[in-house]
Amino acid sequence: MEMQTKAPRAPLNGVDTPTLLNTINFVAGQPELAKFQFRASNDWVDGTCSRSAMLGFYGAGGEQQHMTTYFGEADHPAVLCGGDRAPSPVEWLLHALASCLTAGIGNIAAARGVKLTKVRSFVEGDIDLRGILGISDEVRNGYQSIAIRFEIEGEAPAEKLKQIVEQARDRSAVFDVLSNGVPVSVGIKSVQ
Amino acid sequence: MEMQTKAPRAPLNGVDTPTLLNTINFVAGQPELAKFQFRASNDWVDGTCSRSAMLGFYGAGGEQQHMTTYFGEADHPAVLCGGDRAPSPVEWLLHALASCLTAGIGNIAAARGVKLTKVRSFVEGDIDLRGILGISDEVRNGYQSIAIRFEIEGEAPAEKLKQIVEQARDRSAVFDVLSNGVPVSVGIKSVQ
Repeated sequence: MEMQTKAPRAPLNGVDTPTLLNTINFVAGQPELAKFQFRASNDWVDGTCSRSAMLGFYGAGGEQQHMTTYFGEADHPAVLCGGDRAPSPVEWLLHALASCLTAGIGNIAAARGVKLTKVRSFVEGDIDLRGILGISDEVRNGYQSIAIRFEIEGEAPAEKLKQIVEQARDRSAVFDVLSNGVPVSVGIKSVQ
Repeated sequence: MEMQTKAPRAPLNGVDTPTLLNTINFVAGQPELAKFQFRASNDWVDGTCSRSAMLGFYGAGGEQQHMTTYFGEADHPAVLCGGDRAPSPVEWLLHALASCLTAGIGNIAAARGVKLTKVRSFVEGDIDLRGILGISDEVRNGYQSIAIRFEIEGEAPAEKLKQIVEQARDRSAVFDVLSNGVPVSVGIKSVQ
């Protein structure tokens, strides 16, 4: 196990560290609890604009719900003939990556007893749109590379703060999916 | 080129089809215009909660900006000891996928002269959290699979609507990134 569980840790960085570490130990003894399914439903608005709703998910042995339904919109920017009513889908990918790594940094720092004072990141994704525009079959549709850089401050030596970022990367769900890919099936539920 | 450009098309589905097709033809002649860089900055709030801002991007030969700064939050759900103040990072991935495919469906249907009346999708991602919790090194950190199913209605035969969904998949930036992965670098800009 990567996280330190020997010394009792007080809540830190807004993380309820004792509960988090108890949860990890509990799940270690009952692996079924670790099976989660996250979900979103999405409705087309018009043009390139759509809206997702996120409420229910499965995990910890049963159906769960967020405290409220969360919504997220997306649209293409005006320069791509979209309505620019929201971030583009590929920008949401960057948000997913930054927020996943940052959540890990918060948890890992708390588990290691390190008080953080600032975590900021800048993420960039390079893409050649000749792929999605159908202009070239030799250009991939998606990003060709993504880079994220962190500014991190806290009450620990620089080396320790750096290790927390590296550990967050090594345990990030979104970093893994983006780096290594995942089987994605696209199907039709109904058509008329 | 996949999209049909021979017959002039009127605006449809909220898509300015003539401008979209002109844009594609213009970019085909000047491939430099197709080089885009999307960006987000992210600030840790506390615990597992953070907030991204999306404003500037590069593309079409110069620096661009959204009409306004768009924000997105993320948090871990309460059952994972988070504050549940927003969707989780892995749910934002699902939103990115659904919204990217749906934007493509809007554009492609317009380019093919098909009026759509409804596009709804449901996306699910299965994940075993023993990876990110550090309980097992044999379990990957990210989703093990993602499935999306569409309900689509429009003024065209079912087969044609199905082909629009398939074409959207074949030209989706997010579908490509999730299916095939992308090199992601994680660095430290400053630490103190």
